[in-house]
Amino acid sequence: MSFNTLLRSRWTNANTMLCVGIDPDPHRIPAHLPRNDALFQFCRVIVDATADYACAFKPQFAHFAAQGAEEVLEELIDYIHNAHPGIPVILDAKRGDIGSTAEYYAREAFERYRADAVTVNPYLGADSVKPYADHADKGVIILCRTSNAGGSDLQFLDCGGQPLYQHVARLVAEKWNANGNCGLVVGATFPAELARVREIVGDMPLLIPGIGAQGGDVIATVKAGRTAGGTGMIISSSRAILYAGKGEDFGAAARIAAKATRDAINDANT
Amino acid sequence: MSFNTLLRSRWTNANTMLCVGIDPDPHRIPAHLPRNDALFQFCRVIVDATADYACAFKPQFAHFAAQGAEEVLEELIDYIHNAHPGIPVILDAKRGDIGSTAEYYAREAFERYRADAVTVNPYLGADSVKPYADHADKGVIILCRTSNAGGSDLQFLDCGGQPLYQHVARLVAEKWNANGNCGLVVGATFPAELARVREIVGDMPLLIPGIGAQGGDVIATVKAGRTAGGTGMIISSSRAILYAGKGEDFGAAARIAAKATRDAINDANT
Repeated sequence: MSFNTLLRSRWTNANTMLCVGIDPDPHRIPAHLPRNDALFQFCRVIVDATADYACAFKPQFAHFAAQGAEEVLEELIDYIHNAHPGIPVILDAKRGDIGSTAEYYAREAFERYRADAVTVNPYLGADSVKPYADHADKGVIILCRTSNAGGSDLQFLDCGGQPLYQHVARLVAEKWNANGNCGLVVGATFPAELARVREIVGDMPLLIPGIGAQGGDVIATVKAGRTAGGTGMIISSSRAILYAGKGEDFGAAARIAAKATRDAINDANT
Repeated sequence: MSFNTLLRSRWTNANTMLCVGIDPDPHRIPAHLPRNDALFQFCRVIVDATADYACAFKPQFAHFAAQGAEEVLEELIDYIHNAHPGIPVILDAKRGDIGSTAEYYAREAFERYRADAVTVNPYLGADSVKPYADHADKGVIILCRTSNAGGSDLQFLDCGGQPLYQHVARLVAEKWNANGNCGLVVGATFPAELARVREIVGDMPLLIPGIGAQGGDVIATVKAGRTAGGTGMIISSSRAILYAGKGEDFGAAARIAAKATRDAINDANT
């Protein structure tokens, strides 16, 4: 099933726009997990505990690659597909490379890791995004306005009367989205800018990091980012869920945190 | 030894500004190589054959990752360090992520893969580059003006009177290069723009892909990209060297192609 179909089904049928970000920090994995399989077991428990409240899971590539744990990442995505079919997986790798190389990255994301969607950097332009977007059943979520301190360095530059991130939103909406499978990353820390992007892109899915540990306000985010129909958002929280508990109860604590965040999103969406 | 020291030593002592790009395409690896070790053996032969003419080697991450061959990439970089000490390795991964995640990517590049330098995307701003640049002995080569067709989509946008890529060049030269270990990627396909970047950044190393298979002109590139002292360039060629031969002589053919390119660069630099 396509990323769009899976996502819309979770929004509607599971009544959630919460995306659980999986950014495992080896120093924060509870000590009771078996040392030789701690990374996978930690992620598996988080996934099982939060699946009811997740519209998507978003493993962060670097947190696996820095440890040489690509096989764990493969195993984890495989596990999600098998244990929780219907919940799409967004591989957060933020790749960006020229066409011929982007084809290798698309193959990595969609064939090797079997992700349903991937995050991509727009700096190299249309032909760096096309090899992903050509997979019409997969999602391609392009960085637009990021929530980090340095995000403004380029994204807020005035490009002929509009900041660069709005230009990117327009490019994607008007030119790069021929297959209707593109989305944008827009941080929760700037609700006014999120609202501006929503105006530009219509119903396009927006992946919104920055609530929870990064401090974005849920009510402001939802009111700024939702579509007219009250959906359209993939609101990502990672650390606030992953590390809600520190001991053997970390799964239960993560479930409570995920439900609370899901509910806060839904309460704001009235 | 630092990336800058290694690079300058190769420019001066080995008299070469040619960077051998290692982008192995599994369909173009000669058939006589042992099937269970073909990727590594192909790269090893290329490295040994071209080392005399290389100022750097630049393995392209996606070409390994798409095949799940991270261990081959580790083994290859290890091999280069041992067999050809003094030739720096640039890991071409074009990463770009927010600060906390960028630290994981920096660890991946410099600790896991033991690269001397890495390519990085500027779209997420200063704090996405700093975790790399904080490794003062390593090189951080930031995408500025790329040689692909879509490169102009963002990079050529007018940002307050100058195209975005020039703004990036200025940001890097004036703000992000506190440790003096930054460089820029500027494609060979636009010599006038290469010359403009050189004016902006002084003696900063420029990684210049796009000669050879991508069609950039060597003489125009050298005249546009060199420093006043006649160095400053890491001119990358991949396919024209890797696939110069198709059979058992591919190493010898690669050596001839590398020497010819090195000589063409030096002839143009008079």
